[in-house]
Amino acid sequence: MAYLCEMERHEIKRTDVNELGEFGLIDHLTEDATIKRNSTLKSIGDDAAVLINQDEVTLVSTDLLVEGIHFDLMYTPLKHLGYKAIVVNLSDICAMNAEPSQVTVSLAISNRFSVEALEELYEGIHLACRLYNVDLVGGDTTSVNKGMIISVTAIGQAKRDNVVYRSGAKVGDIICVTGDLGSAYLGLQILEREKQIYLSTPGVQPDLEELDHIVGRQLKPEARLDAIQYMAKEGLVPTSMIDISDGLASELFHICKQSNVGAYVEESKISIHPQAEEQAIAFGINPITCALNGGEDYELLFTVDPKDLEKVKYMPDVYLIGEIIPSKDGITLHTTSGNVHPLKSQGWNHFDPDTNEN
Amino acid sequence: MAYLCEMERHEIKRTDVNELGEFGLIDHLTEDATIKRNSTLKSIGDDAAVLINQDEVTLVSTDLLVEGIHFDLMYTPLKHLGYKAIVVNLSDICAMNAEPSQVTVSLAISNRFSVEALEELYEGIHLACRLYNVDLVGGDTTSVNKGMIISVTAIGQAKRDNVVYRSGAKVGDIICVTGDLGSAYLGLQILEREKQIYLSTPGVQPDLEELDHIVGRQLKPEARLDAIQYMAKEGLVPTSMIDISDGLASELFHICKQSNVGAYVEESKISIHPQAEEQAIAFGINPITCALNGGEDYELLFTVDPKDLEKVKYMPDVYLIGEIIPSKDGITLHTTSGNVHPLKSQGWNHFDPDTNEN
Repeated sequence: MAYLCEMERHEIKRTDVNELGEFGLIDHLTEDATIKRNSTLKSIGDDAAVLINQDEVTLVSTDLLVEGIHFDLMYTPLKHLGYKAIVVNLSDICAMNAEPSQVTVSLAISNRFSVEALEELYEGIHLACRLYNVDLVGGDTTSVNKGMIISVTAIGQAKRDNVVYRSGAKVGDIICVTGDLGSAYLGLQILEREKQIYLSTPGVQPDLEELDHIVGRQLKPEARLDAIQYMAKEGLVPTSMIDISDGLASELFHICKQSNVGAYVEESKISIHPQAEEQAIAFGINPITCALNGGEDYELLFTVDPKDLEKVKYMPDVYLIGEIIPSKDGITLHTTSGNVHPLKSQGWNHFDPDTNEN
Repeated sequence: MAYLCEMERHEIKRTDVNELGEFGLIDHLTEDATIKRNSTLKSIGDDAAVLINQDEVTLVSTDLLVEGIHFDLMYTPLKHLGYKAIVVNLSDICAMNAEPSQVTVSLAISNRFSVEALEELYEGIHLACRLYNVDLVGGDTTSVNKGMIISVTAIGQAKRDNVVYRSGAKVGDIICVTGDLGSAYLGLQILEREKQIYLSTPGVQPDLEELDHIVGRQLKPEARLDAIQYMAKEGLVPTSMIDISDGLASELFHICKQSNVGAYVEESKISIHPQAEEQAIAFGINPITCALNGGEDYELLFTVDPKDLEKVKYMPDVYLIGEIIPSKDGITLHTTSGNVHPLKSQGWNHFDPDTNEN
């Protein structure tokens, strides 16, 4: 398994962060942060970044990623981790129907991490910034007793009337989802399984090539900026939108709660990748459960007015999975076997009782 | 010492964070976050906050505060910690000559912290937001194996021409500082000393009333928004500015490096509070060393064009401590005894080799 033991590679050259000091470290890690956006007037190097407001509103979203809770460095290459830390925040800006423009990245790290390890993390950060045309404009670095914590704040800009909230869904709206669901969750299950095998039989490097889709969805997710850009080009403004980080069911509950509506979803319309389907069955889980409750797909769930049906029907990689109904009719799943079940929001609980300090 | 053992008080009622869950917790902690700013169009509750750009530029600054590195809960009441976490970030926005308008707060906490403890932390956060007229517009909460990490991002808005960088100081400019320096550092030394006494003789609660200034400066610093507002009213725009978080010497080095100039500072002009002077001597440290190298005063260091001398001369709580000179003449301190010393930048190194994971 090529992903395992990535950490050991850094031991070839190991520069202690103390050799650079705090200012030296952030200078070193961000020297590749070339400015791509006209809106970035002043980036790293002062008390604050300065952004020019070309559009009417500024979007701000922030996320924490904690080692042992959100990522496991046994199978997460640092470059992938840096890439993912950026992408999951850009996904939040996309979910407002806005284009992300800047990010700040703060790091708390123990001295287990060498400068070389952090360089690899920043390689991923810089790569994501480059591919999504986003500027890295600030951050903070500090030490911590144990592990690694990454705090990313993403900023975007939009015309005020184009911003899409969770609260705008109306009865009769079509429920749409980009891409396939459940893959990231199954990718995680595979990586966890292989980690256990590796721990009991060190040296075994399993071939995960035939599972590239689901493992890739877990380790290197993408934000659906392409969908946002397509909709902008087509003049399509959804009535509500959210990104799928905690599973389709949980996100649908957010939209229904904030829009004060219900929803029905057709199981048969939800896209599940063949690899995900196969692995779900191998693990003894119903594939649809993975799609509904598995997290980290970072696809977009959105609703459109029926008048926009033609525009959304031909949108690439988009699935029309159901309809918004009155609140009193609840949130239901119409299964392929013809049954109707009330949907349950499970989501992820990051306050795992296992993370016990005492 | 009223500050010690604050943690124990929370044990009277202890609600586990798991009882609320992630969404419940953030809802609960932020329900007091009333919106104060016209520029806050959408606060907490969607994928991102939405801010209206009334001014030309947006300022963004971010900081991490880590338990055991930046704060010690043995003597830091959680309410004070919440207050300070906000203030130190607002200070960065002030240092750009801008008014802070929004903050996001992310928390990583171990299950050592009850809901009641977090409520107390957020009391301080909400208090700072109220006093500085700033909106809390977002954040993230997650668990971590050990301790507490607070990540704050502060946002401000300004007219583009009013933004003041570190890089604008010119030869002949007057060097100014708000307030007194060194107090926060000495307050920390007092708290550390009392912690040791408490640990060896539990139950002893020393009376720190006569040290209220220096202890208060450490536990409850303020951002100098008053100075920014005064300058705006007087039409005074500094040529360069920075907030003093790492000590006067370190900040002066930042300004000189980025402005490509030198500086001379007169020791006698630096304001040191009588409590700080007395305690420095009691600890056997030269008071000026505390003023130059002690951190966390969060005062403003700025330079003004000589044509603005009259405006700055009558500014309350501002000290004119020296002059910008050519880069080749270095950064020097003129002591009260008539000597000239090159200044050294020591600052704080948060990558303490003692924070060893291995």
